[in-house]
Amino acid sequence: MSVDGETGGDVHKPDHPNSQGWTEARRVVLFSDAPLELEAGGRLSDVETEYETYGRLSKNKDNAVLVCHALTGDAHAAGWDKNPEGPMRAYRRDKPGWWDRMVGPGKAIDTDRFYVVCANVLGSCYGTLGPSSVNPATGRPWGMSFPIVTVGDWARQQIELLKTLGVGRLKCAVGGSMGGQIALEIALARPDMVEDLIILSAGHRVTSQGLAFSVVGRNAVLSDPYFCNGDYYGRPGKPLAGLAVARMMAQITYLSEESMGFKFGRKLRGKESPDFTLTGVDFELESYLNHQAESFVKRYDANSYLYLTRAMDYYDAADKWGGGDLAVMAGRIEARTMVVSFSSDWLFPPELCREMVTGMCLARRPISYVNVPSRYGHDAFLVETETVRRLVACHLKAGS
Amino acid sequence: MSVDGETGGDVHKPDHPNSQGWTEARRVVLFSDAPLELEAGGRLSDVETEYETYGRLSKNKDNAVLVCHALTGDAHAAGWDKNPEGPMRAYRRDKPGWWDRMVGPGKAIDTDRFYVVCANVLGSCYGTLGPSSVNPATGRPWGMSFPIVTVGDWARQQIELLKTLGVGRLKCAVGGSMGGQIALEIALARPDMVEDLIILSAGHRVTSQGLAFSVVGRNAVLSDPYFCNGDYYGRPGKPLAGLAVARMMAQITYLSEESMGFKFGRKLRGKESPDFTLTGVDFELESYLNHQAESFVKRYDANSYLYLTRAMDYYDAADKWGGGDLAVMAGRIEARTMVVSFSSDWLFPPELCREMVTGMCLARRPISYVNVPSRYGHDAFLVETETVRRLVACHLKAGS
Repeated sequence: MSVDGETGGDVHKPDHPNSQGWTEARRVVLFSDAPLELEAGGRLSDVETEYETYGRLSKNKDNAVLVCHALTGDAHAAGWDKNPEGPMRAYRRDKPGWWDRMVGPGKAIDTDRFYVVCANVLGSCYGTLGPSSVNPATGRPWGMSFPIVTVGDWARQQIELLKTLGVGRLKCAVGGSMGGQIALEIALARPDMVEDLIILSAGHRVTSQGLAFSVVGRNAVLSDPYFCNGDYYGRPGKPLAGLAVARMMAQITYLSEESMGFKFGRKLRGKESPDFTLTGVDFELESYLNHQAESFVKRYDANSYLYLTRAMDYYDAADKWGGGDLAVMAGRIEARTMVVSFSSDWLFPPELCREMVTGMCLARRPISYVNVPSRYGHDAFLVETETVRRLVACHLKAGS
Repeated sequence: MSVDGETGGDVHKPDHPNSQGWTEARRVVLFSDAPLELEAGGRLSDVETEYETYGRLSKNKDNAVLVCHALTGDAHAAGWDKNPEGPMRAYRRDKPGWWDRMVGPGKAIDTDRFYVVCANVLGSCYGTLGPSSVNPATGRPWGMSFPIVTVGDWARQQIELLKTLGVGRLKCAVGGSMGGQIALEIALARPDMVEDLIILSAGHRVTSQGLAFSVVGRNAVLSDPYFCNGDYYGRPGKPLAGLAVARMMAQITYLSEESMGFKFGRKLRGKESPDFTLTGVDFELESYLNHQAESFVKRYDANSYLYLTRAMDYYDAADKWGGGDLAVMAGRIEARTMVVSFSSDWLFPPELCREMVTGMCLARRPISYVNVPSRYGHDAFLVETETVRRLVACHLKAGS
């Protein structure tokens, strides 16, 4: 996701009645007794997991909503981080959680009604066990010796976390992009556990283009000489240039031609005519991409980028749960499902979402589908706040 | 362009009656008397230019067709290179010129009828003066001290070449992608000189997305530590990794989701189930992108890639010739024009081509426009041979 608060409605300051206020992440160690058997092989014990919760779990334990974050997101979905650490200190100074417009008192995912949980996924670099964590067996960061993780592993990690929180069944699992894949996977792996399912800007697999961009992004990181096979922690040089290129490219896939044209077009950066330069910045668009990349490499770990994008590549829910048949896959789902696509999203395009929805219709599952007209591309799920707010609130109410 | 002869019709061996047979590039030194005053500032003398010609110039000198190559193309448009040099030796062993399906005896651009000229653009690395050439003032390769070149400079270079060949007026200027921009520019700069104009998969400017991809591709090269500010010639390390990433990414923009999905989808590379690896190859699509990049970096110069893509970024024909008004721009054109777009081309999408065509209609210019239904994306102009052949042949005949 690329939204930096410049669009999509007001930002609520921590003292605003609709703000979750100051929040604090917590950490829990999962899979201490029995290790997590990883889908791609190997196992992990003591999976430290960072998460946040908002609101209170009801006595009947029937009001939990799991919010799943996207590729570069984290557990801090709403409110204002009380103690941002390290690289997040600057980043979070002026910004609430990544889905603050949706989650809070009186908001679509109303923390006065719901007990909201958001956890950082395994392999990430935001407080959860990942390649930048220290491997207790060696006393050094895992790097690329970290095992391959999958969307299936993330689902099991989140289910395990919910168990420790006393949540056995979810009122709703919701997520956008990669988060939508995790929500889907939970509803497939544990159909009994999910009452409502909301999938935004996501599909049962990535497209061929999505896979290709993912491959190239990883290639940019892997071929950075400072990458050193992932063993760059503690070294003076880091693979920031490769990660920056990967991010810039991904950024293009989060926007649309229309939104880029509207926002930047061929506008020059503070000048009347171009300087005609190879290395300097002439276009606003160049400046924007540079800025996004610079900001990103300060707060994200290159190895985590590799592991998480690879997990998205490998995910194919129809293959895993239906032997390639979407209707068989969908037949497993018991949740009341809503799928929302956005007309200009070309990373998870409406066509792909419709494939999944068709599978659900064929399986006679309770499914709503909305294709929201939007020029904001893949980022629309974070930007089209008013529409998404109404859709999510409506879906959650209809199920009450 | 990315087509390697695997689609788009038969390859004619040199002894085939429709083949141009064995061809030999020639070189000429242009602007020896008066230097080329560059559009972005600076000047260049003694612009060595590599070109090929096929067929014979008629007595009336009225049968010349200028074929303009795309970004990574060269002067070798048709037939089989008699003496491929250096890195092109392997590349051209099994391949004819890049537009051999269109240019040759009895073909759409019939070398029995037309005198066909194709020249390598200034700044390229295929025998024409560029950043890899030796700067006579220093005795060392220009590198990034080479001046910025533009589409306008290329037009003037080609016009100058035509003059030395005795061609004062073109029966036709034709090109695809970057080549289409050059053909357009010639028709704008010298309206009196062009009878027919054929623009394939190109526009009066790049899109915002096109500009963004171009920026990221250059960034991949510029941030490669072996780039050394463009002064990598003669050094053991070269910025091949950065150039490979740029090429892989560009490759995605030359195809479409449909063509990638059709050709590769999620097919695994010679295995039943994935290996679950970060650095290895699991998907056919990964293998394809790697192969394309490897082949490309062997035959292309990183500096040339920077200069040529930047020239495309800067080109804005409406701005240059119409003060931003496409109809004013189009009003200059005297040529009978045909614009061909392809439905799945998202680098130069039909919408952009239609903008240009609308300008020509408003200016009441003789214009034909065809949007060819195709799944091949931007590469369609090289792949949809039968359709393009008929359209080009028809346009050339109608004007006779």
